[in-house]
Order: sequence, then structure tokens, then C-alpha cells
Amino acid sequence: RIMRPDDANIAGNVHGGTILKMIEEAGAIISTRHCNSQAGEPCVAALARVERTDFLSPMCIGEVANVSAEITYTSRHSVEVQVNVMSENILTGAKKLTNKATLWYVPLSLKNVNKVLEVPPIQYARKEQEDEGKKRYEEQKLDRLETKQRNGDVMLPVINPEPHTVGYSQSSLIHLVGPSDCTLLGFVHGGVTMKLMDEVAGIVAARHCKTNIVTASVDAINFHEKIKKGCVITVSGRMTFTSNKSMEIEVFVDADPFVDEPRERYRAVSAFFTYVSLSKEGKPLPVPQLLTETEDEKRRFEEGKGRYLQTKAKRQAQMEQAAQQ
Amino acid sequence: RIMRPDDANIAGNVHGGTILKMIEEAGAIISTRHCNSQAGEPCVAALARVERTDFLSPMCIGEVANVSAEITYTSRHSVEVQVNVMSENILTGAKKLTNKATLWYVPLSLKNVNKVLEVPPIQYARKEQEDEGKKRYEEQKLDRLETKQRNGDVMLPVINPEPHTVGYSQSSLIHLVGPSDCTLLGFVHGGVTMKLMDEVAGIVAARHCKTNIVTASVDAINFHEKIKKGCVITVSGRMTFTSNKSMEIEVFVDADPFVDEPRERYRAVSAFFTYVSLSKEGKPLPVPQLLTETEDEKRRFEEGKGRYLQTKAKRQAQMEQAAQQ
Amino acid sequence: RIMRPDDANIAGNVHGGTILKMIEEAGAIISTRHCNSQAGEPCVAALARVERTDFLSPMCIGEVANVSAEITYTSRHSVEVQVNVMSENILTGAKKLTNKATLWYVPLSLKNVNKVLEVPPIQYARKEQEDEGKKRYEEQKLDRLETKQRNGDVMLPVINPEPHTVGYSQSSLIHLVGPSDCTLLGFVHGGVTMKLMDEVAGIVAARHCKTNIVTASVDAINFHEKIKKGCVITVSGRMTFTSNKSMEIEVFVDADPFVDEPRERYRAVSAFFTYVSLSKEGKPLPVPQLLTETEDEKRRFEEGKGRYLQTKAKRQAQMEQAAQQ
Repeated sequence: RIMRPDDANIAGNVHGGTILKMIEEAGAIISTRHCNSQAGEPCVAALARVERTDFLSPMCIGEVANVSAEITYTSRHSVEVQVNVMSENILTGAKKLTNKATLWYVPLSLKNVNKVLEVPPIQYARKEQEDEGKKRYEEQKLDRLETKQRNGDVMLPVINPEPHTVGYSQSSLIHLVGPSDCTLLGFVHGGVTMKLMDEVAGIVAARHCKTNIVTASVDAINFHEKIKKGCVITVSGRMTFTSNKSMEIEVFVDADPFVDEPRERYRAVSAFFTYVSLSKEGKPLPVPQLLTETEDEKRRFEEGKGRYLQTKAKRQAQMEQAAQQ
Repeated sequence: RIMRPDDANIAGNVHGGTILKMIEEAGAIISTRHCNSQAGEPCVAALARVERTDFLSPMCIGEVANVSAEITYTSRHSVEVQVNVMSENILTGAKKLTNKATLWYVPLSLKNVNKVLEVPPIQYARKEQEDEGKKRYEEQKLDRLETKQRNGDVMLPVINPEPHTVGYSQSSLIHLVGPSDCTLLGFVHGGVTMKLMDEVAGIVAARHCKTNIVTASVDAINFHEKIKKGCVITVSGRMTFTSNKSMEIEVFVDADPFVDEPRERYRAVSAFFTYVSLSKEGKPLPVPQLLTETEDEKRRFEEGKGRYLQTKAKRQAQMEQAAQQ
Repeated sequence: RIMRPDDANIAGNVHGGTILKMIEEAGAIISTRHCNSQAGEPCVAALARVERTDFLSPMCIGEVANVSAEITYTSRHSVEVQVNVMSENILTGAKKLTNKATLWYVPLSLKNVNKVLEVPPIQYARKEQEDEGKKRYEEQKLDRLETKQRNGDVMLPVINPEPHTVGYSQSSLIHLVGPSDCTLLGFVHGGVTMKLMDEVAGIVAARHCKTNIVTASVDAINFHEKIKKGCVITVSGRMTFTSNKSMEIEVFVDADPFVDEPRERYRAVSAFFTYVSLSKEGKPLPVPQLLTETEDEKRRFEEGKGRYLQTKAKRQAQMEQAAQQ
């Protein structure tokens, strides 16, 4: 589909959230189709997890987004989908890889939303493909358990904050879940949630550095709990770490099932987004350092630094490996 | 246009905000057309004020909204527009008046957005129409000055609030102003702002009473300051007063021109919305009383009570007058 | 309603698809209202066919679209609606006819979606009006039968295509049908389908000629099969013919009822769109010739040429007739 003005920021760069939403829609379609390919209980594939994804090159208004999806692994109860997004400038014909993403879906019965169905197995061309897929499956399973424990944190408001402190840029939005946000089962599409998360993270980043910003990468996101139609969701973001040219923002999604439901507010999703600030020529700009005040802020800054250095080292290793081949 | 699921709440009632947005679009079209009807500098009519409006009967998904607009008065620099909204059930043919609204627009030059142009005068059928219009014009002018002074207030966050207190239901959302939210001059349509205000007020009301709620009326809204494309707007709402069967919510809109602008955050709009809680059969339900804690909350409650009693008295007087005729 | 940036391409011309969607909504309202005007089973009018329509002058961002609809003929089970779209520049007051369209609707029972109800007859001012309407009715009936047979064709992907071949520009998009795309009966609005078709056809045309393009006309479109909520639809387009200054694109819509339905993918709609390429001054530009490779492509090119020459001859005849009067 062609990118429109509303998909982009003032500088014409398409929001990362718009791209994440397209990726998730493609993944939901291919995995729902696969899970219904054999006779049996009809089901809808629900997003369980998105692996870390890097935004390799910005997409602009007027370009066409080409999204392709492929099923790369199936476990008993989950499907791994690989989605590629290419941006195509239809005036020049130039195509660029915007990003690659890996998503995990789980089939839920249309009749009983709490019942997870079995996934028809796919055929692998080679035995190694299956083994590698199984390894990825085990790794993400472990990681999902870990984040579930981390999720208890709460964001507190700050009165009259100083510029460049955590409190100064932290932001939150509320959204009433409407019918168009939901799947056939009446639960919010993972892509809709990710778009809202990117929107809040982008506002936090822009408030901090007051320049034009773009999404550089999104950490793995786990969807522990479904969010139902009619809920109010609160999406909150705060800056956790800055390097010379990047900002890391932690985003929480809390759901409030306030009409006709006895349930308390609960944490549905959390994730880390990384943003960079771009000059008018599209070059990365230096970012003001984050001022940490409380013990918690200092601890989160150090944890963010750890993630930053780890990613940097991983990328360097990949480049060296590529150079040797 | 036909009302869609996205225009309505879970019970199928169209959001007051959707209706306010349609009203404002109709008003903007007719007044821009009128102000450009004589040769001269081209201009765009900007919303300056909406008079108090009552939602007389709810509109539902699948019904058609018929919006009609008429210019009823012109001063040297402003246009008064009367807009009627009828809901039509195209299956039964039944039509009902949903609401009537009076809006004031000011023509701004396309070349210089800070220049207010002159309005071509309209012809009145009778001299009394002009005199009554002039009286309405003077009244609203006075009222606009008054609210401008009230606007300094700020909403502070509350930690761990008790149910039914002000802090418990207060809510805010942030929205990044995109191109489709704006007029040709690059400023947010008044209707877009009103829709967001209704969204926040509705969430405050639902958080307070935890049932299905609908907009019953909107107090006069004054648009003191324009909001530019690329701003982040924060829309905040808090409950100020409850009667037996209604809730009054005060809503603020603050604009943050944070990219490429030296300007501070400023208060753009504020207004009072009244909501009622409806049973499944569409009958008004009792509302839990608002618990006021601080001196300010108690003062605002008394002020809200004043507005409530004044409106009630006015309505009674109108009914008696109607009965005598 | 006022045309927004999202309704238009980068050059500011409103998409033909946006206009088709407004036309269809107006037609659906007036024909549903008519079919329910007599006591009887409640029904919803479903779009069966749109006659060929020419886009006479482009509409731009900021202009107001005035849509008017009139019922011009009724058969026992169908309604013919004539819709006119005028673009109005509210700054200058200039109005231009954008296009005229003729649509056919069929009333389906609200209780049983497979039951076609009877249409209350309209009164004709003159007997000739009824006769002419009957002639149009018979002609479209014949044409609908013919296209139903043509619909079996499938579009295959091409690897590494040469510029200006059919495979080079062919495109497809998938869309998951949501609640806001649907009527009260839970089927996709014809206007939503046409908007997606225009989007794909526009991408095919832009890929071929790499300039700014606009919809010039749409061939008659027949809606053979309804598309249900929850379906995935695949909209595919390929170029069939180029004249010196126009491109003809064939568009297919296939529906995949993949959840909860034993049914196979089926062809729901197909149509021909004609596009022209415009310079910055709005003048038509020459178009690169389409390179046909396979026998099928050559055959479709000749068929397209036939349609092109036929339309040209018809238009010439109309102009001569107009000149003689």
C-alpha cells in the first residue's frame, strides 16, 4: 500500500508504528490461514511475541510498502513467521529493505478463546532448518518467562521536572479500544498495540531532544495478556538510556477492563524502543544526555547501557563474520 | 453519512465527539464559503466558539446522520452558524433531532494567518432577527473574555487514589497533530479537538461509574488559541460535579509546539461536558456521588452545582413558556 | 465533506477510489431508504453493479465534494441510482462536475441475507423515462452475465521482469475485512472494495510510467459475490493495454473466507480502470508502450484496444450529436 501523509512525521518519514502494524497484519493472516488449513476447530492466530527488529532505512510518503511473509517454524502450539518489508519508490523503481521481523503466533479457538489449538506441522526442506527453528523456539520461550517477572514496575508522575530528566519527557496516552482495533475474537490486534507504543515512545524521544526523530529498533515484545474490546488502555513511556546518538525508551501497556468487568487494571505488554534524531539531510544527530536522579533511574540507565553494548557487540560480530565469508 | 461501529461505544450509541466533529465540519464549510463570496483576500473560517449544546436523543450504528447548516448572524469579523443534526433510521424512515448547535467562526487570511478579515454582511428577513443576533453576539463576546481568565488551572496527578474521588477517574491523552487533522492553514480543525475532548471526558465518566455512558450536553467551548500541525496536544479531564443522574467533567487542551519552536506549552481550549449513565434499556441510571477532598475540589463542586441548577432552572422556564403558548 | 491530505496523491489530486467510495455510500443510503419506504420486511440495499464512469476533472485537497443522488429506475428486484459529484472550491466559489455515475442496487432481507426482496416502484414523469430505464436495465443484465464467465483468470507472479512488460508493473495487496468496512448485514460495502481496486490500479500505473497519475475512467464493475466480515481479500492488478496517453489496468478481487468456513477462495469482483499520466501543469503526458510477451498478454492487449476504440467512437458520436442539437 502507498504511504500517506498521516502515516508519517512532519519530515515525511513513515512512523515505525505504521510499519509494525503492517508486519503484524501480514503475520496474522498467514498464520491464521495455516492453522485453519486442516479440517478441525476454526481458530484465529493471536500474536504472542515479536523478536527484536531493526529499522534499516526510513520509508517516505508516496513510497509503496511491499510486505512478504513466510512460515519458518511450527511447534505444537505456535507458529514462527518471518516478515520482510521493502520500500519501493515507484517513480525511480528503487527498492530498499526497510526491516525484517520474526513473529510468534498461537492459534486460539473461535468458540472458546481460552483454548489453544494444535498447529499443523510444516515440511522442512532440510533437517537443519527444523533444528534451527527449534532452537529459536526454546530461546524465545525462556525469554518470555523472564520478562513476565520484570513486568511489575509502575511509572510515577513528576511535578515540574527539569529538562533532560526522566520526568521531563515521560508521557502517556489513553485509548478506548474500538471494534476496528480488534480481531474476530474481540481482542486487540498486536499491531494496533505496537503502533500506539511507537507513538508514545516517539513523543518521549521528541520531548527529550526537540528534533525530528525516527524509530531505529524495537526490542523483543512479549504479549502476555490479551486486551478485550471496550477496555481503556494506558500506554506510558519513559527514557531509560541515552548513548551519543541514540535514546532507549521503555514502554508499558496497561489495560483497564472497566465496564461490566470485575477485573483490576493489569500490565498487558512492555518493551524497549530505540530512537535516533535525524538532521534535515537524514544524518544522525548527537542526543542530549539523560539526567538520572533517583536510584531506580540510575539502575535502569545501567541496564540500558548493558543492552546497548550487547547489541553493539553482536552487530560487530556479525559484520566480522560476514567479512570472513 | 452512515454511522459505523468505529463511531460508537460498545452499546452502539454514537460518540458525542463524532457528532461534534460533523457539526464543526458543516459549520466550517458554510462559513468559509460565505466569507469568500465577495472578491477580496481568500480566507479560511476558523472556529472561535461553540455555544452550549444538548444531545437530545442518541444516534445508533447504521443510522444516517443528516447535517444542515445555516448562517444566522454576521458581525464585522465573525459569523454565527446554526447547525442541526437529524438521525435517520433508513430502515424505518424514522427521523429524530439529535442536536442543535450554534458556532462562531472568524475568517483568517490564507496569506497571513494572524490577519482577521471582514465578513460580508447577510440580509435579514426581519429587523428583529438582526437585533437578536446582535444580542447573542454581545453575550458570547463577554463570556469568551471571562473563560480566558479561568484558564490558568493545571491538573495534578494523584498517586493511589480511592474510588469515586476526583483523582481516581481523572485521565489524559496525548495526540500528535497530523496533516489530516488540519485545515488549509495548517491548524487543527475545531471538530478534531472536540472529538478528543469528548473521548477523554467519556473515559473519566466511565471510570467513575463503570457503566455505559453517553454525552448529554456540552457547555460553551471557546477556542482562544490555534494549534499548529506537528504539535503534541495533551487533553486532560477531571470530574467536577455529580448530581443524582449526571456527571460534569472539565476538560483542558494544552498544546506543546515542541519541534522547531521556541514557544512554551499553552492552554488552547477548556470546556465542561455532562454525561449520563444508561441502562441496557436506555434509561438513565443513578450515579455514584463524587468524593471531594481538597478545598479546590470542593469549590469546583459548588461551581458545578451552580451551573447544574442554573441549567435546570432555564430548562424549566422554557418548558413553562412553551406550555403557555 | 472537505478533502484531506490522506484522500489525495502527492500532487494533491484526490484518488478516484475516494470519490467512488463517496458515490457508493450516497447510492446505498438512497436505495436502502427507498426499499424500506413501504411496510414490509426490513432490508439493506447491496451494490450489484456500477456503470462505466469518467472522471471529468480532478478534485484537490481542501475542496468540498458535493454528492447528490436520485433514483432513476426500478425493476422488480433492483434500483438504478444516478449520482453526481461536484467539486467546490469554497475559496473561489468555483464548482465543477467531477463525475456522474449510475449504480444498481438489490435489496437483501435483514433477516435472511440470501433473500432478495421486491422493490417499491417509482413514479415516472413521462412514459419515455420508464422505457429508457427498462432498456438500460436489460443491457446491464446481459453484460453482467458475460463478465461472470470471463472471471476465471488468475494472475501469476513473474521473476525479474523487464521494464514496461506486464509482469514488471503487476501488483497485489491483501486486506483483512474489519467491522468498519461492512454494512449492517456484515458484508463489505461496494465502495470499500472499489477504493482498494483503485489503489492497486494506481500502483500498477505509477510503476509502469513512473510519473504522477490519475484515474480517468472506470469500466462497468459487477459485484457477483458478497464478501463477508473476517475474510481476507486479495486485490490484484495488471496492465492490459496502453494507447499514446492512457493505460488500461485489469483488477481482480479474490476473497478468502479462511476462518470458520469450508469454502474455497473465490473471485468476487473484476474491472478495468483507465489512468492517464499528468505533468506538473496538469497536462496529459505520453505513456511508455506496454511490452506484451505471452499469447495471453497479446490477446488481452487487442481486447483492450477494442474497448479503447469503442469508447473513443462512442464519445465522438456523442459530441457530433451534441454539435447538431
